[in-house]
Amino acid sequence: MSDLMEMLKRRGFLWSSFEIYGGSAGFFDYGPLGAMMKRNLEELWRYYFVIKEGMYEIDSPTIGLEDVFVASGHVKEFVDVLIECSKCGAVYRADHYIEERAKISVDPVPEEIQKALNEHAVTCECGGTFSHPVEFNLMFKTAIGPGSRKTGYLRPETAQGMFVNFPRLLKFFRNKLPFGVVQIGRAYRNEISPRQGVIRLREFNQAEAEVFVHPAEKKHPGFDSIRDEKLLLVTKFDEEITLTAGEAVEKGIIAHEMLGYFIVLTKQFLVNAGVDEERLRFRQHRDDERAHYATDCWDAEAKTSYGWIEIVGIADRTDYDLKKHMEHSQKDLTIFIQYEKPMKVRRKKIIPKMNIIGPQFKDKVREIVKALENYEFNGKVSINIGGEKITLSEDMYEIKEVEEEITGERIIPHVIEPSFGIDRIFYTILEHSFDEDEVDGEKRNVLHLPGYVAPIQVGVLPLLSKKELMDVAKDINTNLRINGILAEIDESGSIGRRYRRFDEIGTPFCVTVDYDTLRNNTVTIRERDTTRQIRVPVDDLVVDLKELLSLKPEKAFEELGEIVR
Amino acid sequence: MSDLMEMLKRRGFLWSSFEIYGGSAGFFDYGPLGAMMKRNLEELWRYYFVIKEGMYEIDSPTIGLEDVFVASGHVKEFVDVLIECSKCGAVYRADHYIEERAKISVDPVPEEIQKALNEHAVTCECGGTFSHPVEFNLMFKTAIGPGSRKTGYLRPETAQGMFVNFPRLLKFFRNKLPFGVVQIGRAYRNEISPRQGVIRLREFNQAEAEVFVHPAEKKHPGFDSIRDEKLLLVTKFDEEITLTAGEAVEKGIIAHEMLGYFIVLTKQFLVNAGVDEERLRFRQHRDDERAHYATDCWDAEAKTSYGWIEIVGIADRTDYDLKKHMEHSQKDLTIFIQYEKPMKVRRKKIIPKMNIIGPQFKDKVREIVKALENYEFNGKVSINIGGEKITLSEDMYEIKEVEEEITGERIIPHVIEPSFGIDRIFYTILEHSFDEDEVDGEKRNVLHLPGYVAPIQVGVLPLLSKKELMDVAKDINTNLRINGILAEIDESGSIGRRYRRFDEIGTPFCVTVDYDTLRNNTVTIRERDTTRQIRVPVDDLVVDLKELLSLKPEKAFEELGEIVR
Repeated sequence: MSDLMEMLKRRGFLWSSFEIYGGSAGFFDYGPLGAMMKRNLEELWRYYFVIKEGMYEIDSPTIGLEDVFVASGHVKEFVDVLIECSKCGAVYRADHYIEERAKISVDPVPEEIQKALNEHAVTCECGGTFSHPVEFNLMFKTAIGPGSRKTGYLRPETAQGMFVNFPRLLKFFRNKLPFGVVQIGRAYRNEISPRQGVIRLREFNQAEAEVFVHPAEKKHPGFDSIRDEKLLLVTKFDEEITLTAGEAVEKGIIAHEMLGYFIVLTKQFLVNAGVDEERLRFRQHRDDERAHYATDCWDAEAKTSYGWIEIVGIADRTDYDLKKHMEHSQKDLTIFIQYEKPMKVRRKKIIPKMNIIGPQFKDKVREIVKALENYEFNGKVSINIGGEKITLSEDMYEIKEVEEEITGERIIPHVIEPSFGIDRIFYTILEHSFDEDEVDGEKRNVLHLPGYVAPIQVGVLPLLSKKELMDVAKDINTNLRINGILAEIDESGSIGRRYRRFDEIGTPFCVTVDYDTLRNNTVTIRERDTTRQIRVPVDDLVVDLKELLSLKPEKAFEELGEIVR
Repeated sequence: MSDLMEMLKRRGFLWSSFEIYGGSAGFFDYGPLGAMMKRNLEELWRYYFVIKEGMYEIDSPTIGLEDVFVASGHVKEFVDVLIECSKCGAVYRADHYIEERAKISVDPVPEEIQKALNEHAVTCECGGTFSHPVEFNLMFKTAIGPGSRKTGYLRPETAQGMFVNFPRLLKFFRNKLPFGVVQIGRAYRNEISPRQGVIRLREFNQAEAEVFVHPAEKKHPGFDSIRDEKLLLVTKFDEEITLTAGEAVEKGIIAHEMLGYFIVLTKQFLVNAGVDEERLRFRQHRDDERAHYATDCWDAEAKTSYGWIEIVGIADRTDYDLKKHMEHSQKDLTIFIQYEKPMKVRRKKIIPKMNIIGPQFKDKVREIVKALENYEFNGKVSINIGGEKITLSEDMYEIKEVEEEITGERIIPHVIEPSFGIDRIFYTILEHSFDEDEVDGEKRNVLHLPGYVAPIQVGVLPLLSKKELMDVAKDINTNLRINGILAEIDESGSIGRRYRRFDEIGTPFCVTVDYDTLRNNTVTIRERDTTRQIRVPVDDLVVDLKELLSLKPEKAFEELGEIVR
């Protein structure tokens, strides 16, 4: 890992932020190569979720109003427990610290932490003792506008931006379910004491999809096409098992097709992005671990030098979020679902006695009558008028059985959410493609990145640093770039050394311009992984390289030209 | 404008954020169409700055350490003056409020504001009087980690992320000037009372390029290629004049070629993105308006219903930022520039008298001797050792004239910065392309967006909502999408109504599948602006549409097929 991190820093993939000011844990910069690769990764994600699945992207602010996060539960529940050394003042995330020092796992609630501190006599590294554990909210807080009248938080997930826009999104999708919305962008988590490099960041990048579905319709029209995909699963009972998606849904291990479909889509995306299939599994949340609102939740986990780490979460969030926002905003977040044909139903209708409630409730009477219109009688009559709970005694109403025709119903959609941690996926791909091998008896570092993920896709090399070769190389480079291929010239050093430099950053192909190029307008293309070379006409370069760099090339390398080495 | 804003909201371009919670001024969401168009706009910007100019993108955090913004001057100087009504509590940005109410322009410093309030008897809309004006820092403030020990700010510009990475960037570019780095991302400005829709946002999107150059080399190798481009300029003396870039630089109106080159590049980007050339000008900052460190600064301004608004700033920031960060971080942000051949120079060298300074400065002597090595004698000897200023009296040293060979010098690069406000450009393009015209005697709304900017590039329409036509339309739609064309099917409503819907959101082409398609595998392509239609083979669609949607199509619409209507 340290070899990899050194390379990533040296070559401009990842830099710890604010280095000239001593840095700050939990913040990383994507350097020139890192930013390019991250962008390619996000484009690949868009290919899967926007182009193929037909979802739409939106872009909402990273700062959110307090109301939003009160409703979502983050103000109250997005907390970790911290302990502070009373001697040296060091502050730690309690559960992590205790796990590390006492090798036990502990529930992250203050009482349990205190108990563990006592029982295992956990002290600070400096020898000091810890203050009473306290909860610490993990959202970055700020004030919007002058003074502290309006509190804002940096969003802990992009998801809420999609939930609060539900009424507008519903209109955009012409009032029909299901529909999917995605967002790619920053999210924030003010970690107490992050200490795992890019794995635990205070500012990170998410790609989230929220698929709004009818609560009773969790089948997926595309499920048959992926039913036979094999998945390595770890169930909530901690059993490891390999099943096809179809089997897992049929056996009820995965709750329904919608989840199954997105688990497979996630696998396809990850493997095509460069995650090693052998080091990828889907782990189901245990009942005691799952958020109380979710009915089923699976993490895609990748094996790295940090152990198995969560890189994607795929959850059925049910109607939890929309319901909460509906309660807090008092806005209608339901959708009217029309039945295929109207249904006749008998129901008990409440008929208020106006002569009694009239004098008693005066100006509220109209609202009460309206609220009773569709009241579902459950033994008593208790309604909410403008925040006030009003209970009617039995003398205030009659009950009448009526037959009504119902044309449809108002429902709150459920939400299926695949949520991707871009930074962790980025890092996993690098770890899984990092390799040291031997070429012609010489050691080399190489990143076996897929071509469409690699930050530089084509190296353009004049064999020698001569003007006549450089001019041709420049033309080729420009032509590749304006045709959307990330090419880069390198003219300094021996040709072997330049190949190594490109191998190290995962450039899949190098085009070399030599004296034959001047004679017959052909160049060699060298393949990174095998170091084989073919000779092709310069005029075919764009088409050939696009083919080689595509997600599913229709031709193999050796079919595009004669192997010359 | 209100027609446009209504359409942008209704069709999913721009939504005021957190609407279900009453909204919050200064925050906007990009809806599904807006997000797509914004992304296309950013891709076009990348084409100009990354693909064509060969700059590299990085991606640094939006939260910055306090140190960074102390050094950059933002903690002290990024302020507006606010006034608060002592009766109703309303808070305003003072200079804007006074300008609006008293129709005078006033310097945004507390004393001047107070004077203006008094002289013009400016009161609150409610009739109340204002408190004493105070400065308000416009950065969003937060705390990193628990407690308030570590202050962070949301970045007011992406630029600082590039400056603080200078040492790493310099290595990435192999220690050679010039080089360019770009960043596209969020920036924040905690406006006191924003009231101009998307024009004055608290969270916005920037695309900034920082070009690091040798202070003495501000010529640009590509200048000749753009020298004849005409520019509408408003000079710092408020004179409007149309000149070529070459003339403007020769006359000394634009300070140097580097600025001239990026002004032209900016114009080309903006006009190709859809800004009306007739409503675009470049305005030079007046001497009293320009940041004290900038030597020359030009704003690209667009005429909109808000008046002329700044959409891009192009400045020579000199060595100001790097110098400040060097002072504050105590890190070396210089670059060693080797002369073509070594130079011999005579200089006065300070030879310390060890027998005198030795006893006096003890453990600091070594550092003093080292500091004197390259000391530039200027009449006295005063050096800085570990933050302490030490002045040597004349008895402590001798002066000796020496001849030295110098192989190069350390310099701090200058920075040329084109800085783009993506949201304002986005809005300007929409205003400039918004139109109401008549087609076949019927009114229609249309956005004359360039194809590569339009959120939906191709509408795919089955003539009737029949399965056999729908199936073909779906295949065409899928094929266009996986080939990178933003296509969308619409099957509901009359064909005319569907054309209008696509016209309204700026979709440049509609492909219609009819019964001839089933017979001979051809479809019609309809051009938005002229409503002309051609008939083409389905097999040619991807190639033809890519051609039509490209930045510089080589074929005109009517050359691709026979006009059928």
